[in-house]
Amino acid sequence: MLLRSGILTSSEGEVVALENAMGASGVVIVCEHASSVLPKSAGDLGLSPEALSSHIAWDPGALAIARKVSEALDAVLVHQRFSRLIYDCNRPPESPAAMPEKSEIFEIPGNRALSVAERYARTAALYIPFHDRISAEISRLEAEGRKPVVVTMHTFTPVYFGKPREVEIGILHDTDSRLADAMLEAAQGGPYRVERNSPYGPEDGVTHTLRLHAIPQGFANVMIEVRNDLVRDAAGVEAISSYLADLISGALERVA
Amino acid sequence: MLLRSGILTSSEGEVVALENAMGASGVVIVCEHASSVLPKSAGDLGLSPEALSSHIAWDPGALAIARKVSEALDAVLVHQRFSRLIYDCNRPPESPAAMPEKSEIFEIPGNRALSVAERYARTAALYIPFHDRISAEISRLEAEGRKPVVVTMHTFTPVYFGKPREVEIGILHDTDSRLADAMLEAAQGGPYRVERNSPYGPEDGVTHTLRLHAIPQGFANVMIEVRNDLVRDAAGVEAISSYLADLISGALERVA
Repeated sequence: MLLRSGILTSSEGEVVALENAMGASGVVIVCEHASSVLPKSAGDLGLSPEALSSHIAWDPGALAIARKVSEALDAVLVHQRFSRLIYDCNRPPESPAAMPEKSEIFEIPGNRALSVAERYARTAALYIPFHDRISAEISRLEAEGRKPVVVTMHTFTPVYFGKPREVEIGILHDTDSRLADAMLEAAQGGPYRVERNSPYGPEDGVTHTLRLHAIPQGFANVMIEVRNDLVRDAAGVEAISSYLADLISGALERVA
Repeated sequence: MLLRSGILTSSEGEVVALENAMGASGVVIVCEHASSVLPKSAGDLGLSPEALSSHIAWDPGALAIARKVSEALDAVLVHQRFSRLIYDCNRPPESPAAMPEKSEIFEIPGNRALSVAERYARTAALYIPFHDRISAEISRLEAEGRKPVVVTMHTFTPVYFGKPREVEIGILHDTDSRLADAMLEAAQGGPYRVERNSPYGPEDGVTHTLRLHAIPQGFANVMIEVRNDLVRDAAGVEAISSYLADLISGALERVA
């Protein structure tokens, strides 16, 4: 059997999903943590149903926001169809967080002492195709004469290690803060509590996708984090998405 | 531009070469360090011509031996077409030796402080396709009802950090020593100085290919290291290859 098929068989479908592929803008929306689905081979990784549906498996609501923002900006959306518990596509293979043995308060038995063959199969099956696809979409935009912009969409849990988080929307950046600066300025005095590099920042390794696809190339980029209690229903998703789409498009006019 | 094309363009050809693809045996010969060729994008990595043709770039003579052994055993041969200085396919991405900043006495300026985008591109362009191809060949052998055996072929430098090495042929193994044991027993009293796990062993991380493709699957396997001064001419290659082919086939009869 192929090593990578030990993780994912072809009957489980592509790992990457593309939506609004004909989007006319230069923006690429990326959602690395869109899904809590585990490949069949993974079983339950030794986790409870609660853990498997919690924020350690995915970013609840992130895909819903990403879809609305993608529509509003007429931007292509690229999202991962499998859980970050198997491979966190916002981390390189050399990061312990790529296939974590622990996430927040949860031990992940199925990720303990992975063999090199298991690590290889997960990297080959989930990480490489995901970023190859983003890279291909960006290349296409360039070939079409558009100026690519990379926006990654995440949500975070309102309570982490028992502590409530006050921030509602985080605007995160790495070394290139152009788009983030413009968004943060426009967010002042607005309806949400919006903060820079919060609830974490580049020092936590969360800007991997930006470092791969935007920073070396000089493309404007930003990572957005929304507190997930704000997007638990359709009205919340609608409000946040509409707010973010306006924030991004306004900022892009000033940055571009 | 595609991230991986930043390392290697399609005009430079496939990274993996297959020879004797119709070989009738179950043996797969692997040569990770067959080539000293650098992708054009790499320039000279800041190295002198001497360093670029030395053992830090490849295993001189290993491909020549691998070809002869592949013929003698009627075994498929899989080899990497680019230098290990760009990506050492016998190391996982999380190993510092995969894209080394230093090798023996040589600093490698072009590998210093690689960005995550460069690391990704090298991994995607060179490491993943190489092992996917080995995995595909092994799957094919299994589908054809054969019992796969993995043999990796290497050479080592006679002088390392200024010290001469006495061993002539190393028979290396990881946790499964069946094939190595049988070869070492048969080598006793023979024409070459043959040693177990020498000049290095699994603790040095050199059994990565075996750990990927043979050990989890329970396939017989061995890593062979030949001191490269023994294969500097055609007669040396012929003598060593013929010796090794006999050693392997004899051992396989006892192990299988």
